[in-house]
Order: sequence, then C-alpha cells, then structure tokens
Amino acid sequence: MNLTPDAVADRSEAVAKQLREHLPITPLETFDALSDELQAEVLVKCEHRQRTGSFKARGAMAKVLSLTDEQRNAGVVTASTGNHGLGVSNALATLGGHGIVYVPENASPSKVAAIKRFGIEVRSVGTDSGANETRARAEAEVEGWTYISPYNDPEIVAGQGTAAVEMLEQLDGQRLDAVFIAVGGGGLVSGMAAVLKRHLPDLKVYGAQPAADAAMAESMKAGRIIELDGKPTLSDGTAGNVEPGAITFDLCRSLVDEWVLVEEAEIRDALRLVIDTEHQLIEGSAAMAFAAARRTDVEGQRVAVVSCGGNISAKTLVAALA
Amino acid sequence: MNLTPDAVADRSEAVAKQLREHLPITPLETFDALSDELQAEVLVKCEHRQRTGSFKARGAMAKVLSLTDEQRNAGVVTASTGNHGLGVSNALATLGGHGIVYVPENASPSKVAAIKRFGIEVRSVGTDSGANETRARAEAEVEGWTYISPYNDPEIVAGQGTAAVEMLEQLDGQRLDAVFIAVGGGGLVSGMAAVLKRHLPDLKVYGAQPAADAAMAESMKAGRIIELDGKPTLSDGTAGNVEPGAITFDLCRSLVDEWVLVEEAEIRDALRLVIDTEHQLIEGSAAMAFAAARRTDVEGQRVAVVSCGGNISAKTLVAALA
Repeated sequence: MNLTPDAVADRSEAVAKQLREHLPITPLETFDALSDELQAEVLVKCEHRQRTGSFKARGAMAKVLSLTDEQRNAGVVTASTGNHGLGVSNALATLGGHGIVYVPENASPSKVAAIKRFGIEVRSVGTDSGANETRARAEAEVEGWTYISPYNDPEIVAGQGTAAVEMLEQLDGQRLDAVFIAVGGGGLVSGMAAVLKRHLPDLKVYGAQPAADAAMAESMKAGRIIELDGKPTLSDGTAGNVEPGAITFDLCRSLVDEWVLVEEAEIRDALRLVIDTEHQLIEGSAAMAFAAARRTDVEGQRVAVVSCGGNISAKTLVAALA
Repeated sequence: MNLTPDAVADRSEAVAKQLREHLPITPLETFDALSDELQAEVLVKCEHRQRTGSFKARGAMAKVLSLTDEQRNAGVVTASTGNHGLGVSNALATLGGHGIVYVPENASPSKVAAIKRFGIEVRSVGTDSGANETRARAEAEVEGWTYISPYNDPEIVAGQGTAAVEMLEQLDGQRLDAVFIAVGGGGLVSGMAAVLKRHLPDLKVYGAQPAADAAMAESMKAGRIIELDGKPTLSDGTAGNVEPGAITFDLCRSLVDEWVLVEEAEIRDALRLVIDTEHQLIEGSAAMAFAAARRTDVEGQRVAVVSCGGNISAKTLVAALA
C-alpha cells in the first residue's frame, strides 16, 4: 500500500464538503490561560465538542458515506466501546444501515446505552476487547459485512483530516507555526497533517503520545511497527499497539516532525488547567495534547492544539484529579 | 417598586436584539439519558456554554448597554469573584468603560486572573465578601460610579430574560410543559419566567433551590424576605440571602409555580449524570436544576432545564464526585 499524503489531502478536501451536511463545524478558540503561560498564541480545535464527543465521528461518517446502500444495509460491524464505536453508530443512524458493535461484556453501561440509543445492535463475546475485535472481523468475513477499522483505512484517515480542512478555513490565511496532535493508531495526525502541510508547508507537526504507551513513537524509532507492552494511561483513547501493516505508519513517518512523550502527571495537570480556566470537559487523550504543548518551547509562536475528545467518565475524572 | 412581569418581558424582548450583537446564542439541546430516565422529553438550555461560562453575561451586558458613555467611562463597580463579576468584566471589555471588581483577598488566583484578563481592575478589602460588597457600594456612592447589583436591578433581570427569548425562538412553536430554573437572588427565574409565561401561559415554572440554602423559597413561605443561616452547598452560585427590598421577590411570587428543594447528594448525582452521559462540565447550581427535574414527576411531558453555568473548579469537582 502506498497512500501518499497528497492522496489523503485530496480525499479529505473532497469529503469535507459532504461531511458538512451531516456533522457540525467545531470551534477554533483561543486559550488565554495557556497562551499566557507559554507566551504564545494558543488556539484550540475543539473536537471534544464534535457530535459524539470526539473527532472519530468524522472518519466514521466519511467511511459510511463511501459505502453503497447495499453494503450499509447488509451490515456494518466494528468493535469498540469508545469513540470509534460512537462515531460509527452516529454515522449509521444518520445515513441509514444495519450496524453491529462488539463490546466487551464488562463495558460501562452508560457507553453501551449511548451506542444503543443510536439504534445499533450491541454484541459481546467475553470481556477481552481483542477477542471482540477478532469476532467482529471474522463475522464480517463470513457474513459479507463491512468491518470498519478505527484508523487503518484510507477513508477513515481522510475523514479525520476534515478537521484540518475546517481549521484552515477558520485560520482564514492567518499564520500558524505548529500543531499538537494526540496519536494512537495515527488516523487523526495522518489526516490532519496531510491537509495542513499542503497549505502550510513550514508548519511543524508534533505527535503527542503518553510515555506509558507510545507504540507509534517507538515504532518510528525502530523503523518498523513494533509491539509494546503498554502501561495504563489516562490517555486511554490513544492506548494500544499499531496494527501490523497499518497505512498510518508511513504517513506518520513522513508527516510528523517531532514526537513528544508525556508523563501521566503532566496529563493530569493539563486536564486540571482546562477545567479550572476554560471550564470544559476533555478526555485524557486531549489533555495529553495540551500537556505536549506545555513541555515544548513555543514562545512567540502561534500554535494549535487539537482537543480530540471529551468523553471522560466522572469516575476517571475523579481518579485523575484527586 | 412595582415591576410587573409584563414590564420585564417588554424590556427583555427589546434588549434581546441588542445582546445578539455582543453575545452568542446558546444551544437548546435534547438530553437523551435524562429523557429516558424520566420518560419525558428533556431539553437543556446550555447557558454553561454562554460567554464567561454562565447566563450572568446577559444581565451584565444589558445593564452596561443601558449606561451612558459618561457613566461607563467614569467607573462601573461590582463585588464578585463569581459569574456576575465575569459577566460585568466581559460587558465592559466589549463595550468599553472603566471597571473595578472587588474580590475577597483569598479569592482563587485563576478567578482573579480571568477578571484581569478582561482588563478590569481588581481591588480587595480583606477576606470577607460582604465587606468587599459594602466597600464597592460605598465607593460607587462617593465617587459617583455605577454599582451593578447581581440581581436587584430591572436591567439585569431583563437581560437574564433574553435566554428565554432565545429559547422561544429555538422551540419554534413546539410545546413546552415545564421549565426548571435555579434560583439564587431570583434574577434568572424572574426574567425567564416573565418572557416564557407571556407566550406559554400554561407553562409550569419550577424554582429550584438547594435545601441547605433556600432563602428565596423560605421567604416565599414567610410572605416576606427573611434572612437564613444557609449551610454550605455545592450550588455555590445560588447561595446567600436575598437583599432587603429586592425587586425579584414579588416577581418570584407571581411567576414561580412550585419550589423544589434539592439535597446535596442529589446535586452530586446530577453532576455525575451530566458528566457520564453528556460529557459536559456544569457547575453546582446547574446540576441543582437537573436534580430538581429528577425529583419531579414529568412523565410524558416536554420540559426544559436551564443549565445556568459551567464554572466549576477541578477541586470542587473532585470534592463533589469523590
């Protein structure tokens, strides 16, 4: 597979127009307290205020838009209790189709309820998320359904990139020196960086990962996708290994200029800062991107932080802030 | 003083057009999880997403708009580290003028920083908020400045009512059976209920107060404004006694159909529900209004909860949810 940044940007720009009919535009706001702290102008792309509470609604919508009516009605399956599951559920509820989301048996009832509220069927095979993913893929294969990967899919990557198409319009020709983006499987950073660098070739792209679970950054260092034994992290949205053969590996290699590894305490501090000064709820992976900006010298620059999601539970919040 | 609901509604509808030039419209959204729980259709007027993080920006803007250039430039003073202080600061930063906000010496640095960021002068006389208010009023008197009360002012009440003018437009002729509104000094409920009842005469208005500190509800019962020794409450935005002679007393008496007193544990549970299902940050007074709806039988109805503010600190949040 040889998916070039230009091909991603082309697809992103094309699909952005379609997405606009189905998803809201998220604000690009200044973050005064962090601007003061860093002596920089800090903008925030508020994907935590995207429908379903994260940017994942974009990629999922782009992917489901690319399917035929027959494919959508036959069956669309994924495995996730997290933001990707919600994104796919929202896309199917919006565009029509038969959706099945595999979730571990012990998934939180409020997350399962949120998926069911979209009219999506929820299935489980045990408590292991890997086993649920394997079953989802196998069933898709056998039944002729469409399995939707959370990041290893050109349509998903292009869909996430639409956040950057919007950002460029919101910047309206104004300068931007750097952007901080949380990286898990690499779909968001690949899509956004491909679009942004086409129009802002001098922009520096920082890929942020938690030091506790930095599979993509370590894979970059190794020059190939490697498996890590990740530790628990508050940035649960980016946790986990990168799928062998993922298209995002080469994209990250050519698009991410610098990797920033963030400690758990820094994620907690960033979460606290956003709550205390902006009074907005963000999830750990978004706090992680803010933390990456805070440990980088951006004095005098105009930088953006992508606040990728807001789906955090009261329990996690208390554990993080206590 | 004889300020009728009709006079409030007239003024509110007039000032709403002016406010629109200076403040954003807040969303009216459905709250699916609470709708399921109450077997009702629950709408939320998202004042926690108003500029400055609360509805107080409305009244303050309306009041400052009513001043002459001379009055604004001479000096506008208030006493508050809370939402009213931010609202006044925002109005003066937007419209121009010389602002002084008195805050207790021990006010949280992040709140003081937020006020200063608007270019407003911050002064303190000790740690008692009553003493700071007294000094602010005295100074206004001596210097010929304008003191802005948080609720005991027809312009402030009319300004808060603009949230209802917006709501009616957003309802677009659709039915609404009841509304739940947090009550402190009574500015918000007076303004909103005056506007809503003019157009929806059968609407039931619930005034919500924490059982721990329910000065207005107790004053209603007594038939006159009485002083209470309020206990601490998570709904800090509504805490405190009602000013003698407050115009909101008669307005509340004619506009509020039923008072709902809410326990602290119910406020905490409502806060947790909003975080876990809607992933939005609201402050205690807003959670209190949701809690009031949850302890009321609204089955089969279409009701609105006014989510009045989102300014909560990480520390308060942890204390509430732990």
